[in-house]
Amino acid sequence: MGEVQVLGSWGSPYSRRVEMALKLKGVEYEFIEQDLANKSPLLLKYNPIHQKVPVLVHNGQAIAESVVILEYIDETWKGYPLLPQDPYGRARARFWAKFIDDKCYTAIWQTVWIKERKEREKAIEEASHHLKTLENELRDNKFFGGETIGLVDIVSNFFSFWPDIVQEAAGVEIVTEERFPFLCKWKIEFTSCSAIKENLPDRDKLLAYLKAQFTRSAWKY
Amino acid sequence: MGEVQVLGSWGSPYSRRVEMALKLKGVEYEFIEQDLANKSPLLLKYNPIHQKVPVLVHNGQAIAESVVILEYIDETWKGYPLLPQDPYGRARARFWAKFIDDKCYTAIWQTVWIKERKEREKAIEEASHHLKTLENELRDNKFFGGETIGLVDIVSNFFSFWPDIVQEAAGVEIVTEERFPFLCKWKIEFTSCSAIKENLPDRDKLLAYLKAQFTRSAWKY
Repeated sequence: MGEVQVLGSWGSPYSRRVEMALKLKGVEYEFIEQDLANKSPLLLKYNPIHQKVPVLVHNGQAIAESVVILEYIDETWKGYPLLPQDPYGRARARFWAKFIDDKCYTAIWQTVWIKERKEREKAIEEASHHLKTLENELRDNKFFGGETIGLVDIVSNFFSFWPDIVQEAAGVEIVTEERFPFLCKWKIEFTSCSAIKENLPDRDKLLAYLKAQFTRSAWKY
Repeated sequence: MGEVQVLGSWGSPYSRRVEMALKLKGVEYEFIEQDLANKSPLLLKYNPIHQKVPVLVHNGQAIAESVVILEYIDETWKGYPLLPQDPYGRARARFWAKFIDDKCYTAIWQTVWIKERKEREKAIEEASHHLKTLENELRDNKFFGGETIGLVDIVSNFFSFWPDIVQEAAGVEIVTEERFPFLCKWKIEFTSCSAIKENLPDRDKLLAYLKAQFTRSAWKY
């Protein structure tokens, strides 16, 4: 099926989405690490509008935006379906992917970057509210995709690994087992899949990176 | 293909997207107007998470989020394709739909609601920048979808009708023929299609509504 390249960044959950999907599909690819502080001519050529990772390049044609890339992967390599076959199931998956990106991610990052204590508490409350909504959708299903990992699970990859490290780096505790038992159960199932496990960043490297980020922003509790 | 209902609001370009797609597909539907200041039990039942319009209800199954609905419509009723057949073409359409919602709409509404002059000028500049990017994609093609109206055209419906009225109601001039000749040419082509023309709000009613909104917000130049 031709040459596949991923322009990504090792610590980005968005980049990891693309790699996880390709691994699940059994597609070989070349990963090209991008320095986001010093954008490469390749990144500017292939994603001139957003200049962000990830970008998938397939036979020289570039696609940006991680969820758009996941849909492309699912339509191009049929082996392991990421979306259900029926239109209603597909619509529900797309709804939750959008919910995670628009609501959950935005709210969670705010809890980390907002400096003022009261504002931060409000952000934590908002993030918890959205995560509870997400957890209600998951309930005691093995995966968002049912019995197998699907698009919504991949979009949720952040919750399987990053929060613990963000917590250690920044002191914000959100995704606890007490508050989100189903999400924490899902995390164990999700990361026990080899295509996922092999695509998580190095823990110590990510912790050091995030600590440096938070220090640089002169952000203190 | 069963019973189809649209929960929508007459002045909302997001609602109108759903109606335009159904009209292009030749699907009969019942439109149920929603009062967004006083949300109906039906809306709360069918879109409990966002409590927003539009919602498509097909044989009792509800779908929210306008672009998710458009994909569902395209997968359910095959008659008039809204997306290209090839995965790369589909990915490009999804990329632009997301660009319009995330960048163009947000920036344009900011030009109207921001009160402080300098901030507003910055917002106008940002909106113009995004619209120029969008116009470069359109260039001198008849439609974003090529020779026929497709998903990106429907997502762009706002630019075919609303800006002139927003301008009259709020005094912000952005989408002029001088600055955006291709977008203005597209507007004429787009609104000359009967499935589109019949699905635009009443001009005077929308103008009065927007004027009242802007006055209520005590927003002044």
